[in-house]
Amino acid sequence: SRSYKIAVVPGDGIGKETTPEGLRVLDAAARRFGFDLKLKHYDWSCETYSKTGRMMPEDGIDQLRDSDSVFLGAVGWPGVPDHVSLWGLLIPIRREFDQYISLRPCKLMPGAKTPLANRTPAEIDFYVVRENTEGEYSSSGGKMFAGTEREFVTQDSVFTRKGVDRVLKYAFELAQTRPRKKVTSATKSNGIIHTMPYWDERFAEMAKNYPGITTDQFHIDILCAHFVQHPDWFDVVVGSNLFGDILSDLGPAVAGSIGIAPSANINPEKAHPSMFEPVHGSAPDIAGKHICNPIGQIWSGAMMLEHLGEKEAADCIVGCIEKLLAEGGPRTRDMGGQAGTEDVGRALAEAV
Amino acid sequence: SRSYKIAVVPGDGIGKETTPEGLRVLDAAARRFGFDLKLKHYDWSCETYSKTGRMMPEDGIDQLRDSDSVFLGAVGWPGVPDHVSLWGLLIPIRREFDQYISLRPCKLMPGAKTPLANRTPAEIDFYVVRENTEGEYSSSGGKMFAGTEREFVTQDSVFTRKGVDRVLKYAFELAQTRPRKKVTSATKSNGIIHTMPYWDERFAEMAKNYPGITTDQFHIDILCAHFVQHPDWFDVVVGSNLFGDILSDLGPAVAGSIGIAPSANINPEKAHPSMFEPVHGSAPDIAGKHICNPIGQIWSGAMMLEHLGEKEAADCIVGCIEKLLAEGGPRTRDMGGQAGTEDVGRALAEAV
Ligand SMILES: CC(C)[C@H](C(=O)O)[C@@H](O)C(=O)O
Ligand SMILES: CC(C)[C@H](C(=O)O)[C@@H](O)C(=O)O
Repeated sequence: SRSYKIAVVPGDGIGKETTPEGLRVLDAAARRFGFDLKLKHYDWSCETYSKTGRMMPEDGIDQLRDSDSVFLGAVGWPGVPDHVSLWGLLIPIRREFDQYISLRPCKLMPGAKTPLANRTPAEIDFYVVRENTEGEYSSSGGKMFAGTEREFVTQDSVFTRKGVDRVLKYAFELAQTRPRKKVTSATKSNGIIHTMPYWDERFAEMAKNYPGITTDQFHIDILCAHFVQHPDWFDVVVGSNLFGDILSDLGPAVAGSIGIAPSANINPEKAHPSMFEPVHGSAPDIAGKHICNPIGQIWSGAMMLEHLGEKEAADCIVGCIEKLLAEGGPRTRDMGGQAGTEDVGRALAEAV
Repeated sequence: SRSYKIAVVPGDGIGKETTPEGLRVLDAAARRFGFDLKLKHYDWSCETYSKTGRMMPEDGIDQLRDSDSVFLGAVGWPGVPDHVSLWGLLIPIRREFDQYISLRPCKLMPGAKTPLANRTPAEIDFYVVRENTEGEYSSSGGKMFAGTEREFVTQDSVFTRKGVDRVLKYAFELAQTRPRKKVTSATKSNGIIHTMPYWDERFAEMAKNYPGITTDQFHIDILCAHFVQHPDWFDVVVGSNLFGDILSDLGPAVAGSIGIAPSANINPEKAHPSMFEPVHGSAPDIAGKHICNPIGQIWSGAMMLEHLGEKEAADCIVGCIEKLLAEGGPRTRDMGGQAGTEDVGRALAEAV
């Protein structure tokens, strides 16, 4: 029977409460759809850091290497600076495993509170595809004339043909699986005149391979405005590392789903493990109280199953989440209910 | 008596219809508050380009040099690419006159339709201060290995101490004139690791000079989300050229004012003319019909008067706009009314 090796990294704070619920629902799906999940647990976290001075062991990446996927909770805890916790655990996994796609659904779920007026679930349902390895997040740059009036810093954005083409290709392939078959490109070629015109050029080139896909493009400034004014225009939105980062927070914010949204860091060729994590953080303020919402983690589990080839199981989990929200199933406080984290997890596992 | 030299550049499309209304209201303000405006008109536009091959004459910048301000309509017309029209007129004015501040109010006006649910005018009222000369919009960069598989492009972001400090200073000074006295910095120091930590460092340094001002900072991704979820958190938001560009479109979008929002490109030392223009473009689809909304232009005129030192007159114009919108004065179609462009201009001139 089909079997997958999953590395489970709960991480910090509410990650420790949401991952067990994610696993509970994954387990139910495995039993129903007849596949097997082989779990390995890793307690890497800011606690590990305070004991060992490292977020993960020196051979951490190697320990994960032969898993099919990494199932991550949340990383970060007060007292440990972001550049230590994130750059010591999350970012190395993304980079070492060449997870060059960050994928996030922006979907208005029934019962979720969008900050927008008069929007229905059918009107907000799109994906942001973000380039996850190059672009504006580059290691090249530095400071000159430090400490003087002439001081300046630079940072190179780097866009390679390989890096640009592969994320564009992924976006077009994704659009082909969707009913509306549309890709929107985030650009800024009217202001960022060396890199963004190149992005546009490669986008136009890639579009030629997909005559069945509708395309458009907007400068990032007006695109952000359109996310708020016309979220119904979008199907698949593709952007650089920075633009994708911005759009994949703005999208869930517009859909009112920042607290329950999932995200995937994908190596599409499956040459390395991919990683699945909720968009929310470790939420120190409510950690340990068993009141946090596990839906982001559970939904991330569904994305993981889809990546592993278990599409039916993935759709089933997302369907159960929608049904639970629509029909007034147990809800945690952030959604106006009284249920505990485990109540929601159990209800969803049962539904699956 | 006080007298100011204004260079009027209506530009393209509806710019030709909105500028006369802007001038009509400015003229009324001049008479009421006892100052004098010496106007010089320039017909530079995409039409000029199609006749002469240039958006403005070779000595265009010099012709504007001794004016106190430039009052601009809109630039751009189908058939003339953006990099020709914008980089041939708008961008050179910003750069040659070292208009290093771009300032845009984000204000929910009575009767304006915000896409957000349940927001009142008191809850959305802030400024975006954008660095307007360096940062991510740099001329440094290029392409290597063109036409091959190894092809790549780079673009350097450049942040100088002078460039960063002066925009931060402007933001803090502006906050001092506001009741809430708060500055929010847009950063991304968890991802863009050479330039953004420097921005944060200078921000912390500048804040020391303003002990009466509250500060906070957010990474640009979550800041965009907060604009949608909590627009009431903000008072003065300061960002780099790119982040400011994004926020100063997203802010008016959230306030439902993209069609009526003004903007200022300012050289605070008044060593060179500053420039005032509505946020909207030349709107080819409705140009020539006299149905466009002149409020963005008129509001830009108010920002110009404030910059010139005529604060009382500026406040009076903004007050009249708010009153007209609140009390059901004449409205153009975009705001659900039937009035023509001139009707709104005349009503506001009269009110002033
Ligand atoms: C036209 C373009 C270069 C410009 C910018 O990005 O500066 C525009 O978006 C603006 O904000 O005025
Ligand atoms: C933590 C940070 C570096 C990261 C990013 O910008 O990639 C985060 O915002 C995200 O989107 O996962």
